[in-house]
Amino acid sequence: MLTQEIINESVLRALQEDAPTGDITSETLIPESATATARLHAREAGVFSGGQVFAAAFKLVDPSVHIEVLVEDGARMQAGQLLAEVSGSARSVLRAERIGLNFAQRMSGIATLTAAYVDAIAGTNARILDTRKTTPGLRVFERAAVVAGGGVNHRFSLSDAVLAKDNHLAVLTAGGKDLATELQRVRTLVGPDIKIEVEVDRVNQIEPVLAGGVDIIMLDNFTLEELREGVALVAGRAIVEASGNVRLDTVRAIAETGVDVISVGALTHSARALDLGLDISLEVTA
Amino acid sequence: MLTQEIINESVLRALQEDAPTGDITSETLIPESATATARLHAREAGVFSGGQVFAAAFKLVDPSVHIEVLVEDGARMQAGQLLAEVSGSARSVLRAERIGLNFAQRMSGIATLTAAYVDAIAGTNARILDTRKTTPGLRVFERAAVVAGGGVNHRFSLSDAVLAKDNHLAVLTAGGKDLATELQRVRTLVGPDIKIEVEVDRVNQIEPVLAGGVDIIMLDNFTLEELREGVALVAGRAIVEASGNVRLDTVRAIAETGVDVISVGALTHSARALDLGLDISLEVTA
Amino acid sequence: MLTQEIINESVLRALQEDAPTGDITSETLIPESATATARLHAREAGVFSGGQVFAAAFKLVDPSVHIEVLVEDGARMQAGQLLAEVSGSARSVLRAERIGLNFAQRMSGIATLTAAYVDAIAGTNARILDTRKTTPGLRVFERAAVVAGGGVNHRFSLSDAVLAKDNHLAVLTAGGKDLATELQRVRTLVGPDIKIEVEVDRVNQIEPVLAGGVDIIMLDNFTLEELREGVALVAGRAIVEASGNVRLDTVRAIAETGVDVISVGALTHSARALDLGLDISLEVTA
Amino acid sequence: MLTQEIINESVLRALQEDAPTGDITSETLIPESATATARLHAREAGVFSGGQVFAAAFKLVDPSVHIEVLVEDGARMQAGQLLAEVSGSARSVLRAERIGLNFAQRMSGIATLTAAYVDAIAGTNARILDTRKTTPGLRVFERAAVVAGGGVNHRFSLSDAVLAKDNHLAVLTAGGKDLATELQRVRTLVGPDIKIEVEVDRVNQIEPVLAGGVDIIMLDNFTLEELREGVALVAGRAIVEASGNVRLDTVRAIAETGVDVISVGALTHSARALDLGLDISLEVTA
Amino acid sequence: MLTQEIINESVLRALQEDAPTGDITSETLIPESATATARLHAREAGVFSGGQVFAAAFKLVDPSVHIEVLVEDGARMQAGQLLAEVSGSARSVLRAERIGLNFAQRMSGIATLTAAYVDAIAGTNARILDTRKTTPGLRVFERAAVVAGGGVNHRFSLSDAVLAKDNHLAVLTAGGKDLATELQRVRTLVGPDIKIEVEVDRVNQIEPVLAGGVDIIMLDNFTLEELREGVALVAGRAIVEASGNVRLDTVRAIAETGVDVISVGALTHSARALDLGLDISLEVTA
Amino acid sequence: MLTQEIINESVLRALQEDAPTGDITSETLIPESATATARLHAREAGVFSGGQVFAAAFKLVDPSVHIEVLVEDGARMQAGQLLAEVSGSARSVLRAERIGLNFAQRMSGIATLTAAYVDAIAGTNARILDTRKTTPGLRVFERAAVVAGGGVNHRFSLSDAVLAKDNHLAVLTAGGKDLATELQRVRTLVGPDIKIEVEVDRVNQIEPVLAGGVDIIMLDNFTLEELREGVALVAGRAIVEASGNVRLDTVRAIAETGVDVISVGALTHSARALDLGLDISLEVTA
Repeated sequence: MLTQEIINESVLRALQEDAPTGDITSETLIPESATATARLHAREAGVFSGGQVFAAAFKLVDPSVHIEVLVEDGARMQAGQLLAEVSGSARSVLRAERIGLNFAQRMSGIATLTAAYVDAIAGTNARILDTRKTTPGLRVFERAAVVAGGGVNHRFSLSDAVLAKDNHLAVLTAGGKDLATELQRVRTLVGPDIKIEVEVDRVNQIEPVLAGGVDIIMLDNFTLEELREGVALVAGRAIVEASGNVRLDTVRAIAETGVDVISVGALTHSARALDLGLDISLEVTA
Repeated sequence: MLTQEIINESVLRALQEDAPTGDITSETLIPESATATARLHAREAGVFSGGQVFAAAFKLVDPSVHIEVLVEDGARMQAGQLLAEVSGSARSVLRAERIGLNFAQRMSGIATLTAAYVDAIAGTNARILDTRKTTPGLRVFERAAVVAGGGVNHRFSLSDAVLAKDNHLAVLTAGGKDLATELQRVRTLVGPDIKIEVEVDRVNQIEPVLAGGVDIIMLDNFTLEELREGVALVAGRAIVEASGNVRLDTVRAIAETGVDVISVGALTHSARALDLGLDISLEVTA
Repeated sequence: MLTQEIINESVLRALQEDAPTGDITSETLIPESATATARLHAREAGVFSGGQVFAAAFKLVDPSVHIEVLVEDGARMQAGQLLAEVSGSARSVLRAERIGLNFAQRMSGIATLTAAYVDAIAGTNARILDTRKTTPGLRVFERAAVVAGGGVNHRFSLSDAVLAKDNHLAVLTAGGKDLATELQRVRTLVGPDIKIEVEVDRVNQIEPVLAGGVDIIMLDNFTLEELREGVALVAGRAIVEASGNVRLDTVRAIAETGVDVISVGALTHSARALDLGLDISLEVTA
Repeated sequence: MLTQEIINESVLRALQEDAPTGDITSETLIPESATATARLHAREAGVFSGGQVFAAAFKLVDPSVHIEVLVEDGARMQAGQLLAEVSGSARSVLRAERIGLNFAQRMSGIATLTAAYVDAIAGTNARILDTRKTTPGLRVFERAAVVAGGGVNHRFSLSDAVLAKDNHLAVLTAGGKDLATELQRVRTLVGPDIKIEVEVDRVNQIEPVLAGGVDIIMLDNFTLEELREGVALVAGRAIVEASGNVRLDTVRAIAETGVDVISVGALTHSARALDLGLDISLEVTA
Repeated sequence: MLTQEIINESVLRALQEDAPTGDITSETLIPESATATARLHAREAGVFSGGQVFAAAFKLVDPSVHIEVLVEDGARMQAGQLLAEVSGSARSVLRAERIGLNFAQRMSGIATLTAAYVDAIAGTNARILDTRKTTPGLRVFERAAVVAGGGVNHRFSLSDAVLAKDNHLAVLTAGGKDLATELQRVRTLVGPDIKIEVEVDRVNQIEPVLAGGVDIIMLDNFTLEELREGVALVAGRAIVEASGNVRLDTVRAIAETGVDVISVGALTHSARALDLGLDISLEVTA
Repeated sequence: MLTQEIINESVLRALQEDAPTGDITSETLIPESATATARLHAREAGVFSGGQVFAAAFKLVDPSVHIEVLVEDGARMQAGQLLAEVSGSARSVLRAERIGLNFAQRMSGIATLTAAYVDAIAGTNARILDTRKTTPGLRVFERAAVVAGGGVNHRFSLSDAVLAKDNHLAVLTAGGKDLATELQRVRTLVGPDIKIEVEVDRVNQIEPVLAGGVDIIMLDNFTLEELREGVALVAGRAIVEASGNVRLDTVRAIAETGVDVISVGALTHSARALDLGLDISLEVTA
């Protein structure tokens, strides 16, 4: 999850990237005593995410800046809605503005896209899952945005769970070894906290995989008919994940096949930034 | 620009994020001696970017992996075109795959979108510029992708150039001070390498700003008519930048007004990942 | 698991700690051209662990040092057995010696203690588990040593699995809420890769916890009789972990109750370093 | 010595290791508003060490946690004695608990073992010294624990003092060079703040070494008789260190030979964690 | 410019260098409760720089130390003038003293030397510029000191501006290519914020370079006569920089040739530390 | 001492400072295939230092650059003497040039100044010592330069030795405590490797300090007559250090008083960079 420690580390890094040796415009044009008030608005409807991160940008630049985020992560926003209010040193507000926005717009974009998928399957028992197709360096942020949008998170990294794909299975059964036996052996190699997931491409792979005792079975690029068949075959013996060719116009039909979770790479690799605007007004004391 | 040092630092960070304590799937299922060959293809047409970064993912995991990138950054790709070939330890290839793809898909997405803008203004004298609306932590990568797509880069950060917006100007002329005089004073505060740019919202701001001796003047949210008027007024005394409401369907008309550069935030904040695929085949020696 | 990246990072840190500005003894007394050969022996019987780490100490000081580790991690050693041979620059060998030993002795100590527990339960179906009672900063190394000794690893960190203890349960059922219902609600909050474990102190807590659908149930400080009763009650519906008062003289009886895993804090918090010795001989060329 | 800066750096590193992306149990089960009080007790008698480090774990997680350490480093503890009280956010207390304990138990274990050695030589003029056989990354902490137990510290690292062992001496006198002359030459190579120590294995090495003007002479693996002879020979011309085969049952006899300092590797490489317990009670406000 | 973030990072690094494991003198001799007051004086006349850095040294060691800097960066100091007052924990003041002084003396030395150059050209239109000949790791500090002394800064780094020297020009025109055409081509490769400077060694290189449209032309090692000729030739079409053989006794004549800026490597590579003294008095409470 | 690890860390940091996102001049003007040869010359006489650091700058930019340093650290150089030869990629050579020079010029400046002091006392038994008045972040480099110039190093940091000054002594004897007794008590608080030095301002402080058993006594700001008196009083019971008002024209007389070591702050705080020049010639292949 998104801890303050991670937020601070990444936001500081971004602030540093955005002004390694300071903001020469403000330092040259704006008196140190000038103050600013700023209001963050949604310029389009969507789901908000990144409030804590947005706030951190200002607080890390200058702890004396006052900031109030008015909307919870995961809240639906109307176009024009006021989201946060900021006040403090003008130089500080201008220094943090772009970084705060870059995070909040990106996270809100992901939350909004996730919510569209979640809405599309409303009333089914399925849940929307993210993938490892995240922006390098920002995985924790993007996963938090998926949760804000109503999705749940897949394994965080390669270190967290076993996920065997076709290539792994080919290796596992090389030389005619029995898949179920091999999967049971894998189980003894990992501790009790590790889940084992196997990806299958065809219905007839399901039974041998289940015989190996897996926790999750991923049905990859299955047709709707095959998904239904798969769900019936699994019959609750493992969590069923659908994957591949998931789009907003196909996701509901997929959910209705009875799968438990549906993973969607586009949530993180192709969301566009949501349009949030920060209106700043400066005041110079005489 | 994108140096090997920056690439290594960011790719290592991403690799670490993706497998902090190793890939338990490979370590459990794939023998250490297994090898893999992999081919990177374009699954859709576009402009390639990120070849050096893609290669670094594999080289940083395992210097003994052999990788050949067949396409230069900035090259046009056809759907299905072979882009790179990788061979080496199966565990290493599987470990680096997702990170290499995450970078290359994102950078190629930005290059492709940039190229669409550049193509749209072909034959005019204008150039397409990026903005500071980049992914936190990845600015250098995204700027390189913009260049691969045929664009040029705006200031890298707040530390590089003076860019005075409406708020700054209001402060500068508070108490009835003369704008041109104040801008000339700013010139004496910064060294000879620093460019000064001013953003204006109305045509009648142009002349006072030019009187201050700026290097670049940004015409923000001007109509086409106003842009033409602005270009005529400036008459070569500064570089003219158009900004605001730039879309693929409006950019050519903007370019035809005679502006020098057109900045487009969407290049980096809303590009979607291009679909590149890595097909891997493993070999286990008896 | 123990990756080369983690090894290098931690060993470099230890080398830096051990000689922040170089080894003044060698730099003052040993000519740069002197060479050394060194042999690592076991001075007592046990289970070896840390070969890759021991080698890294020398390689990181000086890549031209030649080192051959003759024994696999997890191998049983006799007192006096030759474990590794090192040759190269005398200054380099002396610089790396202590750090290589500090890691290998500590890891072999843990592996040896783990193996004692594993041996003690030989023939039962139970497995020996580590805990989070590890040396700050060395968790990955100590977990690898547990595996070398024949144990398996518990969750790596607080971020990997839900483990609800008495305090958590008290909060969860505050105000008279139903435990099973609450646990089922927790399941919907986490993704499909996250295991849920609950610790219970009394037999009559087991059924309500199982009704909540947990993956692992920890029977904490149960008597042998209670453990047997607990195993019978769970009846395969969850993995059963025994915890508390586990010593070398009690562990077999615990294993024979039928529990699946037994967690032992002492493996990492109270193992003593195994006695390994490095005999070095220097040669100065005329 | 143990500075706040070093404490914070290492404790943060350990906290990060223990929950890289947060504590999913607390975040899922414990309301943000829940509070906790906790009491640290000694579960066995010993010497306390690590109070400042224990406190830092809580303060670094959440500066609003209140913590009072009731016992000074170096104090003797009775079994059952209350050592510290903690109160604050329940999530924060649970997040820091294990890390605070891991440090304090380890440091108190070392302090307790050191005190046993110090007690064993009470009434002699000798002092107990640590060695470089410390846990990688934790040397400063372990040295502080030795001091808490009544010992004193040897050189911190290879960069601090010259310590010539048999191999170094062999090199120094290769080709028939005179040892005393060579040692005097070494003296001119190092600044006035650097102490020079030489390890000898036989009584007849003592005189030539003293002729070279060393500050400390280490008598390695000497019998008691040889130690007495050595002390007499040195006659105050250098500090005399005894080393090798030092155990709790031999240390007093060694001290009574008249040596100045006795170095004991076991203090840090083989201390077991002392049993300290933290009893936590949570409160959820309605 | 010098941001608080950069100051903190570099001062912490220096504090760490100066006492990696604490100040054993203070920790051994000074009671924790002792307090100190200290006064920073100028021991010679000059220009002050580094006040914020001096203060940071104390604040980073111990936020409870009170410090008041009485003089602005850039102010002229008389010998004996009081510059700052410090009070707080004696251990903290003694720990920070040397680092605070090392920075302030060095920065004031550079500011004082810069001011000497600036004074020497008073009344001309030229400005004094620094170079990249700075102390490794301290460039931002040294540039701030140059500004405090009345100078202005050249490009911060190789990444900020194009500066083509003789070797670059030779490459650019290899094979008989036209210099002006090549420089115009370079202009299209860089974004609008990048300045292009060219160094010339002879008067007859000026016209071709100007034809290429450069922003700054550096006249390197020109005689006074050549400088005058160069200024006349350029005639305001570019900024004119004089470089080479600039000393305190030659700089005014150079400035009087009409050049715009004069770069002086000695400002940073050969300034001596200014003599500032910190008088500390300790108080021990009974 | 100066290890390769420290060199690499600091040189990389400096390279990063000098071109955070690459060298836009070279990347724009110099073909990737162009090569360069470069020769480092002394432009004035002096003592060379920094050869290994100079080489590292090129090797870290590009391991394929060939570099041969022809002169040992500590060697006397004539004006015009060839010091090193470099060849390789033109872009790489230009990228590393300034950083290599910044280090080598600074270190050679310190070595040259140190040698002047050492030469001035030739024939006496005294040695020249450095102080903690070093450039923040570069202490190890500057100490190595002092050694290259024939000096020896004082304690590296506050963590290495006890150095009690007037303020410390005042605290130590507050309430009428006996100085010698207190110093003997300090001796029991520190380990056997720690030297104790005391600074005195008057001759009559010497005897009480010696009675406390110190290793080094610093005679601060003593007249020549007082120094002679002090040396006679100490009579070999401690190392005698002279400090204060040490200049090139006073140092010999100080040395002739019989003191053992003379510390000179100016060695590091006020050395000017020595003039070394790198002549580069580029070659572009057709």
